[in-house]
Amino acid sequence: MIIVARKNITADQIDYIRERVEAAGLRTHISIGETRTIIGCIGDEARLAGVPLLSIPGVYSVHPVMRPYKLAARDFSADPTTVVRVGDHGFGGTKCLVAAGPCSVEGSGMMSKTGRAVAASGASLLRGGAFKPRTSPYSFDGLKEQGLKILARIRSETGLPIVTEVMDPRDAELVASYADMLQIGARNMQNFALLREVGQLQRPVLLKRGMSATLKDLLLAAEYVMSRGNMQVVLCERGIRTFGAETRNTFDLAAVPWLKKETHLPVIADPSHAGGRRDLVAPLSYAALAAGADGLIVEVHPDPETALSDGDQSLTFTGFDDLMRGLAVFAEAAGRSL
Amino acid sequence: MIIVARKNITADQIDYIRERVEAAGLRTHISIGETRTIIGCIGDEARLAGVPLLSIPGVYSVHPVMRPYKLAARDFSADPTTVVRVGDHGFGGTKCLVAAGPCSVEGSGMMSKTGRAVAASGASLLRGGAFKPRTSPYSFDGLKEQGLKILARIRSETGLPIVTEVMDPRDAELVASYADMLQIGARNMQNFALLREVGQLQRPVLLKRGMSATLKDLLLAAEYVMSRGNMQVVLCERGIRTFGAETRNTFDLAAVPWLKKETHLPVIADPSHAGGRRDLVAPLSYAALAAGADGLIVEVHPDPETALSDGDQSLTFTGFDDLMRGLAVFAEAAGRSL
Amino acid sequence: MIIVARKNITADQIDYIRERVEAAGLRTHISIGETRTIIGCIGDEARLAGVPLLSIPGVYSVHPVMRPYKLAARDFSADPTTVVRVGDHGFGGTKCLVAAGPCSVEGSGMMSKTGRAVAASGASLLRGGAFKPRTSPYSFDGLKEQGLKILARIRSETGLPIVTEVMDPRDAELVASYADMLQIGARNMQNFALLREVGQLQRPVLLKRGMSATLKDLLLAAEYVMSRGNMQVVLCERGIRTFGAETRNTFDLAAVPWLKKETHLPVIADPSHAGGRRDLVAPLSYAALAAGADGLIVEVHPDPETALSDGDQSLTFTGFDDLMRGLAVFAEAAGRSL
Amino acid sequence: MIIVARKNITADQIDYIRERVEAAGLRTHISIGETRTIIGCIGDEARLAGVPLLSIPGVYSVHPVMRPYKLAARDFSADPTTVVRVGDHGFGGTKCLVAAGPCSVEGSGMMSKTGRAVAASGASLLRGGAFKPRTSPYSFDGLKEQGLKILARIRSETGLPIVTEVMDPRDAELVASYADMLQIGARNMQNFALLREVGQLQRPVLLKRGMSATLKDLLLAAEYVMSRGNMQVVLCERGIRTFGAETRNTFDLAAVPWLKKETHLPVIADPSHAGGRRDLVAPLSYAALAAGADGLIVEVHPDPETALSDGDQSLTFTGFDDLMRGLAVFAEAAGRSL
Repeated sequence: MIIVARKNITADQIDYIRERVEAAGLRTHISIGETRTIIGCIGDEARLAGVPLLSIPGVYSVHPVMRPYKLAARDFSADPTTVVRVGDHGFGGTKCLVAAGPCSVEGSGMMSKTGRAVAASGASLLRGGAFKPRTSPYSFDGLKEQGLKILARIRSETGLPIVTEVMDPRDAELVASYADMLQIGARNMQNFALLREVGQLQRPVLLKRGMSATLKDLLLAAEYVMSRGNMQVVLCERGIRTFGAETRNTFDLAAVPWLKKETHLPVIADPSHAGGRRDLVAPLSYAALAAGADGLIVEVHPDPETALSDGDQSLTFTGFDDLMRGLAVFAEAAGRSL
Repeated sequence: MIIVARKNITADQIDYIRERVEAAGLRTHISIGETRTIIGCIGDEARLAGVPLLSIPGVYSVHPVMRPYKLAARDFSADPTTVVRVGDHGFGGTKCLVAAGPCSVEGSGMMSKTGRAVAASGASLLRGGAFKPRTSPYSFDGLKEQGLKILARIRSETGLPIVTEVMDPRDAELVASYADMLQIGARNMQNFALLREVGQLQRPVLLKRGMSATLKDLLLAAEYVMSRGNMQVVLCERGIRTFGAETRNTFDLAAVPWLKKETHLPVIADPSHAGGRRDLVAPLSYAALAAGADGLIVEVHPDPETALSDGDQSLTFTGFDDLMRGLAVFAEAAGRSL
Repeated sequence: MIIVARKNITADQIDYIRERVEAAGLRTHISIGETRTIIGCIGDEARLAGVPLLSIPGVYSVHPVMRPYKLAARDFSADPTTVVRVGDHGFGGTKCLVAAGPCSVEGSGMMSKTGRAVAASGASLLRGGAFKPRTSPYSFDGLKEQGLKILARIRSETGLPIVTEVMDPRDAELVASYADMLQIGARNMQNFALLREVGQLQRPVLLKRGMSATLKDLLLAAEYVMSRGNMQVVLCERGIRTFGAETRNTFDLAAVPWLKKETHLPVIADPSHAGGRRDLVAPLSYAALAAGADGLIVEVHPDPETALSDGDQSLTFTGFDDLMRGLAVFAEAAGRSL
Repeated sequence: MIIVARKNITADQIDYIRERVEAAGLRTHISIGETRTIIGCIGDEARLAGVPLLSIPGVYSVHPVMRPYKLAARDFSADPTTVVRVGDHGFGGTKCLVAAGPCSVEGSGMMSKTGRAVAASGASLLRGGAFKPRTSPYSFDGLKEQGLKILARIRSETGLPIVTEVMDPRDAELVASYADMLQIGARNMQNFALLREVGQLQRPVLLKRGMSATLKDLLLAAEYVMSRGNMQVVLCERGIRTFGAETRNTFDLAAVPWLKKETHLPVIADPSHAGGRRDLVAPLSYAALAAGADGLIVEVHPDPETALSDGDQSLTFTGFDDLMRGLAVFAEAAGRSL
């Protein structure tokens, strides 16, 4: 932490700042400049997190210089990317993994059809929501445990591991008893009770970026899970909320390479929510792999026109098969496989 | 709902759209224009929420024309503002209510001092967090039930009703057993499990706007609570996340009069989080009352420099007393009292 | 400027950084910490503006500590607010000034009516656009010089000084020959050729904040004008572009008190563009004065329904008269007059 | 245009709305629903642009259904993409074009070196700013005409056509007399005087998206140029301003495929400004081609550490050569060449 003093700071004020910093267990280094005095704080910056430095008389500005996350930081791991295993596959290896399936588990038949279709096209995981977060209390919010049971049955049929969302800490164990990977949705990225709960389970976590979360916020959310002992976290860029009106969200593609440099956790993208439109899924998916993403999560539905949710952005089976063919080319261009 | 057709739509496609709309229980009215055909959907628009109209061939654009919330809408209530009673006071009456207190309940002594001070200056409620949402897992996250007990004791001492945050649906009953009003924080505005839970309790709810929530999203979050039977919801504008770098958040002041026209629920503002700086609290507070807010929630601490959280934006007792004097003048200018 | 080194920086790299900083005319102060080495740069930080410090091997982060503007900074002036005189009035004095009039000068008759009406209600200046920036090339873009002539005639009739927009550096002298105050619109806030041009004229400038301009950007735009010799700049908050969908722009009210602390230039608000809706003008105006604004610029039209532009947000004469009565009360509450 | 009436609209109000719409030259079609009356407006919607429909009593909401641009719209052209020729090359053909060079023309020697290097690596155009928009009036703002002369000389040396920025309408002819392609920078995207000026010149235009411009705004800016007769416009996504703090701007990748569907104009990307960091240039460039971009504009400098501007995001010659090798692979994956 670097503390920059106001021009007219007094010696007493400097002393007081030094005391406060040292009381938090850090040492200080005072540098008196022509126009400004600077107080460097040496030691563990996290200990200063609760100290309202800007409130102390004489302080002009405060500059953190250390990352606020540790377990999620790139240099925590010896490997550039930690491989997070789900079933026979691993996020973060040379193979780019694609999770595919409908927004919501609507019933057994449509899930069975979808599972077989996406497996045949080369998907590595099956997605599908049994608990659905919906902006309106009047919208369909999922089949709950019945949906989880359907997912488990389709896993038996297809061999595909299952990723599905958990929204309520009270449901975490239940969902984990059926699912291979737990999804934390964008709206719950800072639901700290939920993050702590999945941090105590030994199930890989797919953590989606919140709509107004900075990338540092996302890594701190991962840190919540990891600090409870669950190190198997995969991050997912799914678009942020900006003034942009033409797409459902703004796909922050640069998040992918930025995260790949900043953390050892695998990073995937969700082109369906990012663009919100079926015809944008393929170009956004190709771009994500080109930028270094370790995989994708894509919405696919047997008949998007009749989907109970997200029909506008779901691919048909044919559309998904075409996507996978296209992706194979871009994965290879990126030095990966599909 | 109005559906605008693509230029080259066929008669069969129009028929199919009509079928889908009518299957959802609405009637249609087709209007064939020079350049566009328009399909008006007559009836309860909410029934079309799950239908992916944009996916249907021939559809160019879809325009909702009804509000997606009912209980929260202005015309649900005979009165322009529903008064939400907490203790002896009511949010939404002629008196503007001020809730004041520290960000976190740090201990018994500081709460006692703060309670007495804010009561003396004219606060109507005491605020203080026992469960704290923190971006980092390494930050102080509150005294939990011990904090609730302290709050209850200070209520006895001062007579001030208590507003405090609930973060986890599992804690909702516990918090409600101590608190007079339940706060839902910005990060949990779309934590639907939590909204449903507090919707089942008979305790007034202070619902803060999420950092990237539109005002419609905020009203839909209120609708979650209300649709479970708890109609006592107070909305709170606390700043949104934008490119603006100079203040902690961007205080969306226009939210106050917009909401006052759109809903019958009382609307208050949180100038402490909006500005993030002690010296901005007074001007933002004055502005909120001038724009029609029904009250404020303000951070006050006996010694902001030593606060465990939000010290930079907390007022001292003197600062709060000065604020209340200033507010009295602006409340009067707005035809209210303090 | 403070330069924070990467953990593994070498002595040679430190030397090289020092050389580069000293070559720009500053001195350095090296502080070697436990986890980080910090290089403080002492002297005129502006000289480092062009040096790509982040590109130099060994550099982790760079923290400017000085304001990038000088003439616009609060401590450049002995007075807290510089009074910018226009006609008999001064922006920044105890009286809050209101500029009122239509979006566009549409003709002589409507301007004459409007001028008389707003003067009678107590406006201090008449606004009206002769050159109009329009998002579409097919929209009405103003009467040009004919509009300026009309404005000048209404000034004679009413005694109100005129504020009107200049969009093209080639028109600056022409506009200045008719107008008492030159408006720079939001879209031109970083039209540097235009800023330099009005900086060479001795006419007060009303500088509107750009839709995505930070407050530092706004002050740097003012600095462009001032650095050419024209110190008579009034800043205007008119709403920024965010995800917010319910109002035309997001009125960043906190900009008013933030600027009042950061600069000596007067600060006004434009509630018409901020809210985009007639019924929001009064609450936003009251809030602006409550937060310390030195005045307002408000759209008024004899018959908003027939206005050629911005009709939805224009007040009628009666509406403006009501506004002025309300404002008088809030101005007084703020210790000012109207 | 579709006009939705308030619930309680009267027959007289409907008649009045009809009159106003018909006065603008459109016909109306009234559809009386259960809860709402809808007035469809048939004919050229642009004629209603200036009519403040929301101001008319009885109007609840207004829904445009036609695109506000014509010349820029996809269906204006028989070909999916119009090829914009610059020198021997064409933006929008099978070959993806790369413009490369320094942010600013700093002198003859560095331009000569850069021109030769980027030509050798396969660039199609040379970029370099002679007139530079700078946020601060104290920053280096270019060599002006001397810079243009240097650019022209390097064109002779290397055969590369030149793209360079024009900021002031008074300089447009001068810049066009030296340059092969005129760049309009992000800050000037809505400098309508400048857009009109380059619309009258027969030089291809590279139009960069403004920092807070929607894609519709960008197409309307192109429409300004085209409506003056210059149809040779290439659009450029260069990042928008959002809350995102980790990169210089937020690269809105989805803009590329969205624009490719919406307009016949070629679309390129600027990965240097989007990411603001040298190590993000390659992944963002690969992603842009994968998403269908017709080319790139990239900053390259002989010695980025000593660059007078944008050094942090400029590639070295080696870095650019590596980029071009990588791009060739992704161009091929996208069915294009480099």
